[in-house]
Amino acid sequence: MTTGAYETLVRHWARLHRFDHLHSMASWDRAAIMPSKGNEARAAAMAEMETLLHTLRTEPRLATLIASAEQEPLLPAQRANLREIRREWSGANAVPAALVEASSLATSRCEHAWRAQRPAGDWAGYLVNLREVVRLAREEAKRRAEASGLAPYDALLDQYEPGMTSAEVERLFADMQTWLPALVRAARDKQASEPPVAPRGPFPKAAQRALSLDVMALLGFDFEAGRLDESAHPFSGGVPEDTRLTTRYREDHFVQSLMGTIHETGHARYEQNLPRELLGQPVAWARSAGIHESQSLAFEMQLGQSAEFIARMAPLLVKHLGAQPAFEADALQRLLTRVKPGLIRVDADELSYPAHVILRFGIERRLIGGEIEVEDIPALWDEGMASLLGVDTRGNFTDGCMQDVHWGSGLIGYFPSYTLGAMYAAQWFAAIRRGSPDLDRRIAGGDLAPVFDWLRENIWLQGSRWTTAELATRASGEALNPIHFRRHLETRYLGRATV
Amino acid sequence: MTTGAYETLVRHWARLHRFDHLHSMASWDRAAIMPSKGNEARAAAMAEMETLLHTLRTEPRLATLIASAEQEPLLPAQRANLREIRREWSGANAVPAALVEASSLATSRCEHAWRAQRPAGDWAGYLVNLREVVRLAREEAKRRAEASGLAPYDALLDQYEPGMTSAEVERLFADMQTWLPALVRAARDKQASEPPVAPRGPFPKAAQRALSLDVMALLGFDFEAGRLDESAHPFSGGVPEDTRLTTRYREDHFVQSLMGTIHETGHARYEQNLPRELLGQPVAWARSAGIHESQSLAFEMQLGQSAEFIARMAPLLVKHLGAQPAFEADALQRLLTRVKPGLIRVDADELSYPAHVILRFGIERRLIGGEIEVEDIPALWDEGMASLLGVDTRGNFTDGCMQDVHWGSGLIGYFPSYTLGAMYAAQWFAAIRRGSPDLDRRIAGGDLAPVFDWLRENIWLQGSRWTTAELATRASGEALNPIHFRRHLETRYLGRATV
Repeated sequence: MTTGAYETLVRHWARLHRFDHLHSMASWDRAAIMPSKGNEARAAAMAEMETLLHTLRTEPRLATLIASAEQEPLLPAQRANLREIRREWSGANAVPAALVEASSLATSRCEHAWRAQRPAGDWAGYLVNLREVVRLAREEAKRRAEASGLAPYDALLDQYEPGMTSAEVERLFADMQTWLPALVRAARDKQASEPPVAPRGPFPKAAQRALSLDVMALLGFDFEAGRLDESAHPFSGGVPEDTRLTTRYREDHFVQSLMGTIHETGHARYEQNLPRELLGQPVAWARSAGIHESQSLAFEMQLGQSAEFIARMAPLLVKHLGAQPAFEADALQRLLTRVKPGLIRVDADELSYPAHVILRFGIERRLIGGEIEVEDIPALWDEGMASLLGVDTRGNFTDGCMQDVHWGSGLIGYFPSYTLGAMYAAQWFAAIRRGSPDLDRRIAGGDLAPVFDWLRENIWLQGSRWTTAELATRASGEALNPIHFRRHLETRYLGRATV
Repeated sequence: MTTGAYETLVRHWARLHRFDHLHSMASWDRAAIMPSKGNEARAAAMAEMETLLHTLRTEPRLATLIASAEQEPLLPAQRANLREIRREWSGANAVPAALVEASSLATSRCEHAWRAQRPAGDWAGYLVNLREVVRLAREEAKRRAEASGLAPYDALLDQYEPGMTSAEVERLFADMQTWLPALVRAARDKQASEPPVAPRGPFPKAAQRALSLDVMALLGFDFEAGRLDESAHPFSGGVPEDTRLTTRYREDHFVQSLMGTIHETGHARYEQNLPRELLGQPVAWARSAGIHESQSLAFEMQLGQSAEFIARMAPLLVKHLGAQPAFEADALQRLLTRVKPGLIRVDADELSYPAHVILRFGIERRLIGGEIEVEDIPALWDEGMASLLGVDTRGNFTDGCMQDVHWGSGLIGYFPSYTLGAMYAAQWFAAIRRGSPDLDRRIAGGDLAPVFDWLRENIWLQGSRWTTAELATRASGEALNPIHFRRHLETRYLGRATV
């Protein structure tokens, strides 16, 4: 069925996959376990590999090979793979190597300095580095826009969320703003009469780790194909064949490590169940950042904060952390689903989270569009946090506009994926529920198969076989529809959906 | 001082060093922490990198560059680097890529099968794979012999021990056989009246790990530039900038993990203290396998089994494992220096160890020379173990000729380095003692600086600046002289040297 050009491309991308394996593992190792003095040599080794990968992705012969392959008779899955190969090739070629290198240097410098500047609240210092990062990001956006025909910000967004546009994000977020603030108020009013029981610590790290491992097992994580370790900023890394999760433990507080582990386990199960037969080819990669977040949030929010799953999980807390009133199922659910708008995105509850994303999206889109400058961020931040969440961030750079490292790292265009993921996750659970009307009863009984079977079949095993809209439609009968997220939130926090 | 060709080579080898970093870390990860299902992808990724490294080491332009660089005015250290570059280049070019690949496949298969065949004592099964490995090793030895002008076995030996010949090894080992058996008997007679106190376990793994970390700190290991983990077969891996040690714990027995950790710490400190200014260049690599073993054995045997160090270490055992009669300094020394010929090389005491090496050297040398075939190994093994150590291995393949994975892994020509290392270690300590007549008193007081300062200055910081003979002469006033090893053993085990 296939001829030379396509097969040559497949072999080329298999080679890229093998090199990328070494880069990914080195990256995981650096974040999770590397001793500090290894950093310089590690950075040099990873940069050398990044240069090689860029060279391989932009080899001049690829243009002809891709064009020839597109004329070859291919099976549908091969054609999808070729579409993704072209996509990656175009992205790599859009940005000249010199700009890649300049961005890499500027973001490394900015991120490194941020580690000290953030705790010190040194906005003036951060500003100097961030200005350069944004200048280069604008240049990159312009190059990507020229190559793709998209608007500059959309060209950045498209790297993480293929096919999504800022106009569509804006429409989704504008709609959300018509009902979310009232829902937050109503939920808080309702919860005011149901105070949670404060957990009594300390919670020893070893016990939290044992709890994490038990919960991962409950969630179907394959320990023969992955590990759980610790890092300052939890993440899911490694390669699909060997996924490496991290979490972090605070002995005075167990929720962060527990929910962090559940979140990362969602990412990891997606990776562990990507289609095996084409592994290493772009068609076998995860579909998008938003779809990836839809897995972590399906685990953390849809499943992990449901009354049924919490009831199933509560005995594990008692087993590892000892019995206490806060670990009774009802009390635990009140604790885990408490709505309380605050300063920090990563600590935000399910209802407040979208507001953090809306704020960041608004700022970064205008930043790339040239409507605002880096200097304008603090005022916009204060204004947005006050109007969206009713909190005061004036003068607080540390827990205000310097809290995330995304922009300093050059990750501009990623924030929408968090909330798109939350929307998709709700859409998936609505579909699962339609197929398994007794879902809640089964989850309460510890039978998570309906969830995992559906996700495996409809999301995990599909990799990048379809566009995101096709994937969603095949899985749930429609492209992204935000009504499911609204229904989910209203049901969970008010007891009934209004739409 | 330098011109184009040499600088081009330096940049090329720096690039090799960066790629090798990723390969080394992936290799460490595989042995220490990788989950089992990651193996296939890891093997593919590492093989891809090995192919790249081989391609880079055999680039056609290197022949001209090396020849040109040799005509350039260079500083002495640069000239030494160029000598080592030529050495590595010659070695890589001696073996055609197809043979490298065939050997890689054959040794992978043989080593993998050995894991199950060894416990089953399946010599017949192992034989089939080993025959192919040896066939390819002979072919490789022939190619290396043609390229180097050395005899075939010597060409293999030269990879690990540059400048050493089998004739010299044979002379050293023949001399040792004239006095070692009598020394073993005398030591055993002497020890018969001084029975050790049996340690009472169990020794929890966490306590053994804490003990290992304390002993590593005592030995000057830099924890900001390395880690201690666990693996089935302890080793020292990683890169000089980030050394990764492993040990293994048996809860019924603490000696293996403790002495294993001390041994690997010796390797690690060598790596951690290789010359920094040329790191990544061949001149900054460890000199040879024998010199590397001289560091691990300087730590494990010369220092680690001395009465003075044991007295310093005993309180750490009490601290982590609890007080018991076996941990009193005298008792502990009797335990750690007990001479008892046995079947297993890696468990052998200091006096029996050379016999294990002599046996293996005799077999592998004749195997590569074509004087014997793989089928002849068991009979030669039984005969050698009986005559050298007085133990009966007939019918016991598991703890006989199948105990080591070296040959199955294609590691032929390495065994002599263990005993050359023991000889060098004794020679270094004789030199240290000449320079620090109060050495024992200082060690007993916990002051290990005379040892570390001497090793750092004379061995570690020299890297591959000199040939092995030059290194030894500069360090200790003479090339390898086995009399120091004999003197050391006689002093330790009989209380006085006879030579």
